[in-house]
Amino acid sequence: MGFIKHEKEPRESIGERRERYLGHTDKLMMVIIDFDDGPTSEPDPPHSHPHEQMSYVVSGELIVYIGDDQEQLGPGDMFTVPPDVPHTVQLLSEHVRLVDCFTPLREDFLK
Amino acid sequence: MGFIKHEKEPRESIGERRERYLGHTDKLMMVIIDFDDGPTSEPDPPHSHPHEQMSYVVSGELIVYIGDDQEQLGPGDMFTVPPDVPHTVQLLSEHVRLVDCFTPLREDFLK
Repeated sequence: MGFIKHEKEPRESIGERRERYLGHTDKLMMVIIDFDDGPTSEPDPPHSHPHEQMSYVVSGELIVYIGDDQEQLGPGDMFTVPPDVPHTVQLLSEHVRLVDCFTPLREDFLK
Repeated sequence: MGFIKHEKEPRESIGERRERYLGHTDKLMMVIIDFDDGPTSEPDPPHSHPHEQMSYVVSGELIVYIGDDQEQLGPGDMFTVPPDVPHTVQLLSEHVRLVDCFTPLREDFLK
């Protein structure tokens, strides 16, 4: 069965001092993202995708931009991203960890 | 848009010293569960549901049982639960926080 021990999971670099590891079922993907390049002076370029997304802030502080809205979030907070809505983040602390969940799978994250 | 600030979210009691809060999109639900009744002397009774589930351990230590398998997990670990497979947990620390994600929605969690 699907036990995913973090110390055994390969990290994929997704940028300078940014890494992720992930797991999935048939229709659900969970991605753990560590940003270690904060604070950042401006938001990342926005991106969008047809998948539904929900995210949880494990640690750190950041501003989340979704469409025309923005909010400062920290540990314990969540946000939802509808399909095809541009979104991005700006890091307010050196380290931020997010749990991003998607349905359907982000096939672009699977090799 | 969907910003969910933890300090503004009502907690729902799901047992003695166990609470949750949650958010969802159309097909994706994210549930934050705080167990504060650990350690427990035996596993909870197993349960199952037709939804796919992925979970992330934010804090604490626990044993997760899925079908006939079991594993001790801690912060940063994840597990996957296929539809209709019985699963449960035994808490090894006083406090455990899990992020449980489901697709489709757990309509039974919505009032």
